[in-house]
Amino acid sequence: MKRTHHCGQLRSGDVGKSVALIGWVDSIRDHGGILFIDLRDREGLTQVKANPNSDDANFNAAINSLKPESVVEFHGEVEARAEGTTNPKMPTGEIEVQVKEVVVHNISETPPFPIDDEKGDKVNEDMRLRYRYLDLRRNKMNKVVRLRHATSRSIRDYMDTNGFVDVETPILFKSTPEGAREYLVPSRINPGEFYALPQSPQQFKQMLMVAGVERYYQVARCFRDEDLRADRQMEFTQLDIELSFIDREDMYELIEGLMKQIWKDVLDVDLPTPFARMSFYDAMNRFGVDKPDTRFGLEIQDFSETFANSSFKVFQATVAKGGVVKAFKAPTLADVTQGEMKNLEETAKSLGAKGLAFIKVGAEGEWKSPIVKFFSDEEKAALSERLELEEGDIVFFAASEWEQACAILGRTRLLCGDLLKKRGRLEIAPDQFNFLWVIEFPLMSYDEERGGFAATHHPFTAPVPEDVQYLDSDPKRVRGQHYDLVLNGVELGGGSIRIHQTAVQKKVFEDVLKIPEDVVKERFGYMLEAFKYGAPPHGGIAFGLDRLVMILAGLSSIRDVIAFPKTQKGQCLMTDSPTPVTEKQLKDLHIDTTVLSDED
Amino acid sequence: MKRTHHCGQLRSGDVGKSVALIGWVDSIRDHGGILFIDLRDREGLTQVKANPNSDDANFNAAINSLKPESVVEFHGEVEARAEGTTNPKMPTGEIEVQVKEVVVHNISETPPFPIDDEKGDKVNEDMRLRYRYLDLRRNKMNKVVRLRHATSRSIRDYMDTNGFVDVETPILFKSTPEGAREYLVPSRINPGEFYALPQSPQQFKQMLMVAGVERYYQVARCFRDEDLRADRQMEFTQLDIELSFIDREDMYELIEGLMKQIWKDVLDVDLPTPFARMSFYDAMNRFGVDKPDTRFGLEIQDFSETFANSSFKVFQATVAKGGVVKAFKAPTLADVTQGEMKNLEETAKSLGAKGLAFIKVGAEGEWKSPIVKFFSDEEKAALSERLELEEGDIVFFAASEWEQACAILGRTRLLCGDLLKKRGRLEIAPDQFNFLWVIEFPLMSYDEERGGFAATHHPFTAPVPEDVQYLDSDPKRVRGQHYDLVLNGVELGGGSIRIHQTAVQKKVFEDVLKIPEDVVKERFGYMLEAFKYGAPPHGGIAFGLDRLVMILAGLSSIRDVIAFPKTQKGQCLMTDSPTPVTEKQLKDLHIDTTVLSDED
Repeated sequence: MKRTHHCGQLRSGDVGKSVALIGWVDSIRDHGGILFIDLRDREGLTQVKANPNSDDANFNAAINSLKPESVVEFHGEVEARAEGTTNPKMPTGEIEVQVKEVVVHNISETPPFPIDDEKGDKVNEDMRLRYRYLDLRRNKMNKVVRLRHATSRSIRDYMDTNGFVDVETPILFKSTPEGAREYLVPSRINPGEFYALPQSPQQFKQMLMVAGVERYYQVARCFRDEDLRADRQMEFTQLDIELSFIDREDMYELIEGLMKQIWKDVLDVDLPTPFARMSFYDAMNRFGVDKPDTRFGLEIQDFSETFANSSFKVFQATVAKGGVVKAFKAPTLADVTQGEMKNLEETAKSLGAKGLAFIKVGAEGEWKSPIVKFFSDEEKAALSERLELEEGDIVFFAASEWEQACAILGRTRLLCGDLLKKRGRLEIAPDQFNFLWVIEFPLMSYDEERGGFAATHHPFTAPVPEDVQYLDSDPKRVRGQHYDLVLNGVELGGGSIRIHQTAVQKKVFEDVLKIPEDVVKERFGYMLEAFKYGAPPHGGIAFGLDRLVMILAGLSSIRDVIAFPKTQKGQCLMTDSPTPVTEKQLKDLHIDTTVLSDED
Repeated sequence: MKRTHHCGQLRSGDVGKSVALIGWVDSIRDHGGILFIDLRDREGLTQVKANPNSDDANFNAAINSLKPESVVEFHGEVEARAEGTTNPKMPTGEIEVQVKEVVVHNISETPPFPIDDEKGDKVNEDMRLRYRYLDLRRNKMNKVVRLRHATSRSIRDYMDTNGFVDVETPILFKSTPEGAREYLVPSRINPGEFYALPQSPQQFKQMLMVAGVERYYQVARCFRDEDLRADRQMEFTQLDIELSFIDREDMYELIEGLMKQIWKDVLDVDLPTPFARMSFYDAMNRFGVDKPDTRFGLEIQDFSETFANSSFKVFQATVAKGGVVKAFKAPTLADVTQGEMKNLEETAKSLGAKGLAFIKVGAEGEWKSPIVKFFSDEEKAALSERLELEEGDIVFFAASEWEQACAILGRTRLLCGDLLKKRGRLEIAPDQFNFLWVIEFPLMSYDEERGGFAATHHPFTAPVPEDVQYLDSDPKRVRGQHYDLVLNGVELGGGSIRIHQTAVQKKVFEDVLKIPEDVVKERFGYMLEAFKYGAPPHGGIAFGLDRLVMILAGLSSIRDVIAFPKTQKGQCLMTDSPTPVTEKQLKDLHIDTTVLSDED
């Protein structure tokens, strides 16, 4: 059972060689009594040729028993294909193997769907997930599995070369009382106590910095019991990095180098560095989102001043209340259909808008709009000039509290981008990679519901030094040393320089975030204590590996880059899990055997 | 905040250079008003010298504020140490740095125990685990953390080079009704259903072979809710390997190459290959255990025939009942103390022996023994000759059912080895690595309690081809294609060639192991189905990474090779977990809020 070559390897230079190939029967064709079999292994396809009417009855029986997806070993000789039968699309298309011996390892039943890139893509996803072992045989999926490995290998090479130490941190972690979205794991030997599966190794990696590891990384499994979406899984893999004695500039340089190496190793693309940077406020103001897709324009502009004293009361009143009026132009999109417009409006409403005001610029430059009649000439001139309006353009407005107005137009902008792409009026090259550092996030955000400040990212983020003075007087003004890395509108990862001094961390917990002292002690007491014993200045970052691979592979579903993903209902269809368990199992874990049903 | 050098780097050739160092204050000594500070980072120590009575009051204050374990950045000039003050034990012992500027990053309180290799080792382990971030700062622990990384890097290099694909498999897995020692994880979105944390990725890796991945590996986190011991943790890391189209010989060669590379990369030792092989029966008969430490003799011999008709009724009756009489000689150990003998007896009794029969060979060759008076001259001659008895030797006997007799003497043999080492009569070089393949295990073992056969390893192991004929008639006789890799008496890993055909796997499940059909269907139905669609011949192996690192680092506790281990009670003392959770958290998971106490 030793192959001499894999199925993507033989070329015309190999003609005359005796070879052995092992793999799966991809297809069988009968041409004039001779069987032509495409044999497939993970490296490719080779055509083999066998005569099922030879002198050897056993041989004939074996060859005739073969069905697609059977596992078989062929011994034979490499021959040049006859003229006119070569296949330039196949790397092995100039040769074929004349079979002399065959060993059948396993006969396959007819698979529930074809092992084929195009046909397989059309198969219902649940079906693909139930028979994942067949789905993964498709060339496309095989490539993704290997691209994922190539990506993590490239990452490890870079980290190792740069002096980072791969340290494993526990998966059975401490549960946090507020961690409503944590998976809990009952402990058998500590009745009534539970572990939690970590959402990230954040606390452990900071402890590793206190421990003097200096440069840490881990490709870490993390867990999040949130509602699942196409780009989220309940368990996911994170490239986790933390290092000591650095500032933000060091981090940018390190990560730019990492991305450069990944893109080179995996896609053979030379990324230009350094990456662009944009403040959170600029990102929100110009693109309506903290992860802007800068591959196309349609930038948002602020017209609050223009409409501060407008006779259009909706705009005027919004500004008077401290809100904003914003607008952007989608060029040539005045031909938006009614259905498309309805979708845009509904999206805007789902974000809290009352409607979606617009102006269409018609032929001769006349404006079609339900609101334009309220505008003064000056207001119209301001719009016309700053948005450089031309025939066929459409303008969308949002008038609301700043963050909401940004979000409404940010989402509308992306949808308009899609509509322009659909119309062939916006083209984005598949190899355009707009990396962007989004920086200068506010350290704290005011949580209306709770009536207090909450950490925008997490409570370990250090404030920007020159803003520390406002921690007490004007917390909203304090910027955090946080950074997000965004690529083409997707957040690849984020991190921050951390607080490393007990007093500052305690102040943030207790005075700013107003977390009760006993809760701080219970959750973070050990961190505060650790910081007393010589914690170094440190910072870190984390990337979702699945999302990174998804982008590198040019895919749009996170489930396609994971070997055994779960459905949006959290189920692994292949193994049919999760499952009910026995009363005895629950009792062993000191859990009452009454499992509450949904209605409770 | 940029160092020019790390603290293990400067040499006499660097004298005169301006440098910047950052790290932790390891020690401070005052010599005639000048402070000598050993600055430590993860790479080493450098002595710096500062005058706390300089003209610069700020400088003086900063220097005087330093305490051990404070984090500090020094700028200064490299100077040669004065004659007589060089330290040949320190790589940087020829130089010191004259401090010109200082930046204090964090002042440390006095740590609860000294950051010192020798003193730290004497600290209570719970204390070390509670302040793990300080324990890991010790040179010794820092080295282990990095040796672990070096090991996994070496493994990955080898696997990558050999065409293996790193594939991640799920941690939230299907629970198995019999899996009493599984961690269960309640699913929030599937009320009443649970995931289990996997004990190994066994089933997924076999599915990857069906999926055509051909060569898979993963450094995988696994979980086992067993009672913990010094060499076991509830969560552990496994190097997991599976490949298609191979036989046992291919596996031995692959793994020997892997070990060779690890030993070379990590210890710079050239391991001789191929490794020795021993059948399970030989291992048990000669060493009394399936993981023999072959670094010393004291081999066990069988005397069942000798005593088959003995007038010593205990031996005779044992043989008559189908049992065995076995013995081994511990040379020179007739001077065993009463206390040592008591310990040996108690160990034997804990394994089911009624006592531990022995013969001491005294001066003039006379035998001291409570049982020898029952022996015939022929029996004595046989013992004397086959064991080559000499003055000062001691012989230990076990008479019992085969497996029990082996186990009793196997354990006694190891204890005798320790006693000989203690006496300086047995020396084992620390760099002696006796690798051994233990092979030809029985596929099934009879489980007296259940009254049926159980898989010796797991039910996916393929039988040795020539033994398949006995599957129905004499299952005990069937050997499995299983292999264990043993090093110096420690089981490093094990695996097998798997069953890849539905019919054989079904036969093993249902006819041999007598697992009810519905249970087979529920637990393994998807595997049996997968095998129908062209499963390739395949096999695999798994190694405990923690244990491997433990041996490479020359340590004896698994907790010392894990950054954040749990105690034998399953607790992470540093974070103080596991913890109780709130009623609301349990309700969200559809678990009754009554958590049963221990008494229930």
